[in-house]
Amino acid sequence: MSERSFDVIVIGAGPAGEACAGRLAGGGLRVVLVEPELVGGECAFWACMPSKALLRPAELLAEARRVPGVTEAVRAELDVPAVLARRDEVIHDLDDSGQLPWLEKRGIELVREHGRLAGERRVRAGDELLVAERAVVVATGSGALIPPIEGLREAEPWTNREVTTAEVVPSRLAILGGGVVGVEMAQAWRRLGAQVTLLEAMDRLIPREERFASEQVAESLREVGVDVRLGAKAMDVRRADGGEVTISLGEGPPVVADELVVAIGRSPHTDDLGLDTVGLEPGESIEVDDHMRASGVEGDWLYAIGDVNGRSLLTHMGKYQSRVAATVILGGDAKATEDGALSPRVIFTDPQVAAVGHTVESARTAGLNVRTVDRDTSGNAGASFYGRNVPGVTRLVVDEDRRVIVGATFSGFEVADFLHAATIAVVGEVPLERLWHAVPSFPTRSEVWLDLLEEYGL
Amino acid sequence: MSERSFDVIVIGAGPAGEACAGRLAGGGLRVVLVEPELVGGECAFWACMPSKALLRPAELLAEARRVPGVTEAVRAELDVPAVLARRDEVIHDLDDSGQLPWLEKRGIELVREHGRLAGERRVRAGDELLVAERAVVVATGSGALIPPIEGLREAEPWTNREVTTAEVVPSRLAILGGGVVGVEMAQAWRRLGAQVTLLEAMDRLIPREERFASEQVAESLREVGVDVRLGAKAMDVRRADGGEVTISLGEGPPVVADELVVAIGRSPHTDDLGLDTVGLEPGESIEVDDHMRASGVEGDWLYAIGDVNGRSLLTHMGKYQSRVAATVILGGDAKATEDGALSPRVIFTDPQVAAVGHTVESARTAGLNVRTVDRDTSGNAGASFYGRNVPGVTRLVVDEDRRVIVGATFSGFEVADFLHAATIAVVGEVPLERLWHAVPSFPTRSEVWLDLLEEYGL
Repeated sequence: MSERSFDVIVIGAGPAGEACAGRLAGGGLRVVLVEPELVGGECAFWACMPSKALLRPAELLAEARRVPGVTEAVRAELDVPAVLARRDEVIHDLDDSGQLPWLEKRGIELVREHGRLAGERRVRAGDELLVAERAVVVATGSGALIPPIEGLREAEPWTNREVTTAEVVPSRLAILGGGVVGVEMAQAWRRLGAQVTLLEAMDRLIPREERFASEQVAESLREVGVDVRLGAKAMDVRRADGGEVTISLGEGPPVVADELVVAIGRSPHTDDLGLDTVGLEPGESIEVDDHMRASGVEGDWLYAIGDVNGRSLLTHMGKYQSRVAATVILGGDAKATEDGALSPRVIFTDPQVAAVGHTVESARTAGLNVRTVDRDTSGNAGASFYGRNVPGVTRLVVDEDRRVIVGATFSGFEVADFLHAATIAVVGEVPLERLWHAVPSFPTRSEVWLDLLEEYGL
Repeated sequence: MSERSFDVIVIGAGPAGEACAGRLAGGGLRVVLVEPELVGGECAFWACMPSKALLRPAELLAEARRVPGVTEAVRAELDVPAVLARRDEVIHDLDDSGQLPWLEKRGIELVREHGRLAGERRVRAGDELLVAERAVVVATGSGALIPPIEGLREAEPWTNREVTTAEVVPSRLAILGGGVVGVEMAQAWRRLGAQVTLLEAMDRLIPREERFASEQVAESLREVGVDVRLGAKAMDVRRADGGEVTISLGEGPPVVADELVVAIGRSPHTDDLGLDTVGLEPGESIEVDDHMRASGVEGDWLYAIGDVNGRSLLTHMGKYQSRVAATVILGGDAKATEDGALSPRVIFTDPQVAAVGHTVESARTAGLNVRTVDRDTSGNAGASFYGRNVPGVTRLVVDEDRRVIVGATFSGFEVADFLHAATIAVVGEVPLERLWHAVPSFPTRSEVWLDLLEEYGL
């Protein structure tokens, strides 16, 4: 077996792995990236990017239909083949060659093999043994979790991969799980013409977000014709020979569909990673400290970033962790203090849900003395130019002891880019008294901040 | 002459006056608002609101034409009568009765007269003498400045009032002044079908903003067919009997138009305000301290907020000053620290320009040791869903001694709501090292922050 040595071996070329390799190479290290699939990973090809490509056109068309003067110019429905063609363009027809010049320019070696740890600082990649002088970074990500439901695996369900890349609109789509993937895909495909049934075992969708957000998303899905079933537990799944899938529920009539999407959670890609050769448990997330160093591994050489460490299953937080890990490996000092459950997060349905930090529920569970203020997201002059009566609520969760915002949730159309102001306020711990002087411009939708501070009594 | 007394007399019911009256009444004071024109003021009827109503539809239609799937659904041009009808709805057909319940609910007395100071704590309003037990707040705003150009007044030029409320699209429109009003109205009416010539005496449009913003706005105006003439000084204006207007320039051929808009600046509404009865100069801005108290007037009873004090001619800063003044009058402590030239500000052209704090030029003039970082506003994954190759630059101006952002300018389509994140960072003086932990979500356009911090070297 041939052997090559590098300063750092990065296993997995998703957004976290790529970004980490880029920083390390920029810092002068010799880096190899090991990836058997596409460079760019789940996010670029089978998750964030294609899902947004499927969602955005309908959101835009809905807005065009709300604004007089434009309404009259819209004289046809969404062009579905054009949307799918643009989605294919966004995912480069599942071809990653466009990513390669970025690696080449930085002198990053790419090994297109499945990488497996083979003891300290060693990674087996196909016929090669790669040796890391300094560190190994695991960034293998996660895959859809398939729960042990009778008949489910045999029914060959779709995961995020198939549902984001489908070449034709399925006639009847059933989705198991009302989390982010579930609600986004339900809305996207419904608006593209599918009949969609969304099954969620709990009593509300996107259950980690504020309750009002769950309700608004459910209402918007129902409005476009998604059959949203809450408290619906799938008990048994069967697919007729080459045909339709029948999902039996704990209660009520079964659901019949052409395709079933499983979107109930993620499973870290650690089952075939050689974790046992370094004393870790295969199949589990790789636990790390705030420097992204794997816990329980001696010698400070093993790092894990992105979904695989289980801290925040979000592309941007994986990239954040990549910056932390790269800084530490390059000899600097960095700690991830802002990932975890309180990370900024966006659900790209229409209305969107954008949140950072605590919900009122999580804040109370954490024992904080909080007060909330709520206002209509689009209840101001600026919003009037985007259509009338657009639903949405913005909530601030204020830590009354410290007089800082510890959580914010925006629901409403296109609020994704509202979030960063809240993220800076939360992470920067800007006191309320100082925020009073941060004046939103008139007439912008950002005046919701003014409404909120006035509601608070400032 | 009958006499009535109140705790506070507010002269002028524009956004600043109204907001101030509302806060004071909310604090338990007896308030009278004196306004001879419409409650809501210039902003609601003849400036911010109608201008945005004229601009937004074309901006939205342009976006709809950029996004595949929606492009195909757009099969006609902007419906101009529908845009104008919606603009009329936004300005309530110049009827302010919709504003009155807001005043009534708060117990604010409205006197529909021209108010004039008549010595200390006294205001003459028609046949009445109003007496203020506690304070008089002047919030009379500003009007278009008509420069002493030969023949200009006689040619009966339009101001912001006529150009924002025109009932038909003028065939040929000339605009004098390439500031905010000029560039917004040039684009709005051009996109609605007018032939537009924009005359600016300086070498660039919106000269107080970053040079790249000036250039991008000029380019976008030229792209839609506005005749942008820089370094063009109007020397003489003549209107033929009931007909076209001819503007002679210092150099080059004259401009002939059906209407001429004067948009070269503002003049405070203080010429007929009785300022001489309290020892102040009529026709000048009312200078105030940071508590909004008029300088040089004894007894701490006279306040001036909004355009009339000349600090920041922006609705939102007038409202900010109203909060300061109301707090002080109610016995609290407040100081306006964030108004002035560094105030947050937005130009609603397409591309928009949104800025807060310093430009690189103003920072250097102020003697700061700054470094700038620039990135494409729409050079990230999030922006790809809003159309390809959309121009725009985002610049941060960093104070290298304090390691905080002291200025930010965003140019690009719909960046107005990007600004508040920068405003919080600037006003909150959040250190760069802390901003590093404020992670923008993927895939949102806000990732421009990530690009900028990386460009800076973080």
